[in-house]
Amino acid sequence: MAKRKGKTVILDTKPSIIGNAAAVGKKESEGPLGKEFDKVYEDTTLGEECWEKAESGLLKTAVCTAIEKAGKALYEIDVAYSGDLLNQCIGSTFGLRELKLPFCGLYGACSTMALSLIQASLAIESGGFDCTLAATSSHFCSAEKQFRYPLEYGGQRPPTAQWTVTGSGAVVLERKKGDYPYIDSIHIGTIQDLGVTDANNMGAAMAPAARSTISDFLRDTSTGPSDYDLILTGDLGAVGSELLKELLMKEDGIDISAVHKDCGLLIYDREAQDVHSGGSGCGCSASVLCSYILNGMRKGEYGNILFIATGALMSPVSSREGESIPGIAHLVNIRRERSK
Amino acid sequence: MAKRKGKTVILDTKPSIIGNAAAVGKKESEGPLGKEFDKVYEDTTLGEECWEKAESGLLKTAVCTAIEKAGKALYEIDVAYSGDLLNQCIGSTFGLRELKLPFCGLYGACSTMALSLIQASLAIESGGFDCTLAATSSHFCSAEKQFRYPLEYGGQRPPTAQWTVTGSGAVVLERKKGDYPYIDSIHIGTIQDLGVTDANNMGAAMAPAARSTISDFLRDTSTGPSDYDLILTGDLGAVGSELLKELLMKEDGIDISAVHKDCGLLIYDREAQDVHSGGSGCGCSASVLCSYILNGMRKGEYGNILFIATGALMSPVSSREGESIPGIAHLVNIRRERSK
Repeated sequence: MAKRKGKTVILDTKPSIIGNAAAVGKKESEGPLGKEFDKVYEDTTLGEECWEKAESGLLKTAVCTAIEKAGKALYEIDVAYSGDLLNQCIGSTFGLRELKLPFCGLYGACSTMALSLIQASLAIESGGFDCTLAATSSHFCSAEKQFRYPLEYGGQRPPTAQWTVTGSGAVVLERKKGDYPYIDSIHIGTIQDLGVTDANNMGAAMAPAARSTISDFLRDTSTGPSDYDLILTGDLGAVGSELLKELLMKEDGIDISAVHKDCGLLIYDREAQDVHSGGSGCGCSASVLCSYILNGMRKGEYGNILFIATGALMSPVSSREGESIPGIAHLVNIRRERSK
Repeated sequence: MAKRKGKTVILDTKPSIIGNAAAVGKKESEGPLGKEFDKVYEDTTLGEECWEKAESGLLKTAVCTAIEKAGKALYEIDVAYSGDLLNQCIGSTFGLRELKLPFCGLYGACSTMALSLIQASLAIESGGFDCTLAATSSHFCSAEKQFRYPLEYGGQRPPTAQWTVTGSGAVVLERKKGDYPYIDSIHIGTIQDLGVTDANNMGAAMAPAARSTISDFLRDTSTGPSDYDLILTGDLGAVGSELLKELLMKEDGIDISAVHKDCGLLIYDREAQDVHSGGSGCGCSASVLCSYILNGMRKGEYGNILFIATGALMSPVSSREGESIPGIAHLVNIRRERSK
């Protein structure tokens, strides 16, 4: 049975990450992590007639690859948790439809990889499920079409804007022990809204949520940044990352700068790839975690990491109606005994 | 620890429903269950400038009333699970924002009340949470605006169409034992898609999912319809309910007609209220379960019920792109020792 410290839940079963995979588009494959991804689609339509179907295809590839790498058959997956940015989460629904898995839909915007890992872990911890799946996706073109402008319009982007990652990540968790990275503890975030209204500056909207979750977690567990090999945020980008570090220093006296990285800054070469403040979208943290980071943990490069994925829980309608952007950040502590 | 039989999970902690509440609009208050609801808004704008904010207000009222009726303070709620039909689930986000609860967003379309109950139950079963909240909402006007036509257009509705309920329901679950209705077991559904494409006939799209979940559950638990006082579907309406009964009879030889009711048929007087095939929307099953049904269980009218909420996991975009409508149905077995 899991134990609770403050708002942090320490898992007893320590679900093992027995498979992980990431599928991405061309631009992501040209970035610094290009060689880490399991599958690259040079043609980001995936041969489909519309971007939404392409996104579903990406998700399906990541999910099926993760299951295969875990050495599992589809029928051995007891439940799949997934969600995405598209209205009514159709990326996940249509991506998973043919796989016939018991399915729980989530909505956490760009926090979805952490949210799905949390729910997939709690399902195992409950005793009712042995093998669970966590996944999410995003696609630059489906996101632009839905949230911003038609691609053909060629709208200008301010320097604080981020670039939605065309990518999907999936993880298979299992109860069994073994030499795998595992989920040690989880922390479900609380909605934070400091009144940011600029939808071209999501990093600033999400940083307060990341700050709150990280500082609560460190206090709950009586640990500090130096206890972790990596504090990995989802997609705060350049602007949001700086703000997070400032907020943690100023409000909590916590300095994470020695161990902090952000998936939105890892996935692209910001200078060469013209992505302004960095990558974003559910698929950003998902494809980085499910390739570079988990591969690195398997190789012994990291033994104890905090993965904090942040989400901006707004919609174009809420923004038009004058609402500010509520942020949320969910945290997962992933560990593996160091091999050195 | 929970135990698994087939795809059904029998909970060990039997989370107690210590509080439930429903908030609805004028039309719902004029239906047969009018006296059951905790709060009725004669003005369905709730004094807000837009329908989305009105929906968030409904949700907030249901949530706060359920927490109050449970005798809890906000800080005692360890996690809230909620979702809704609006793009990016803003009904839930903005409804819960000010309550500062740890929050997990869900997307299950009209299955959300069952999905949130399942996740809130698994959270307790994991040992990591003592007191959890499950909620959802829908609003006729925000749904029409988003999914169909502007209200001012006055579009005609075919006889198979359903009427989106303006309502919200919320439940507070707790680990403690006592004389409460409790969650005995849960069953997470699998996406079913038989190729229905008529978005004005959701009942037909969702009935196969309900059939699959009900027949799997009955087989897993070696029980039959006569073991239950009530088999309550979410919002299949008149067309979908008939189809469900036919499918179960034809495919599985199961006759649920003696104990079957549908929230979409309970909430309105179909003749007098001109709602065609019945009520629908996340708020339909939520407001019926969280008032009439759970109140009835407390009064000893029902001792053992199956609550099966169904969802159509499509979007206007997927329909425009020629996709059929994938359905899902999640099941919760709620029990209370009969008082007679």
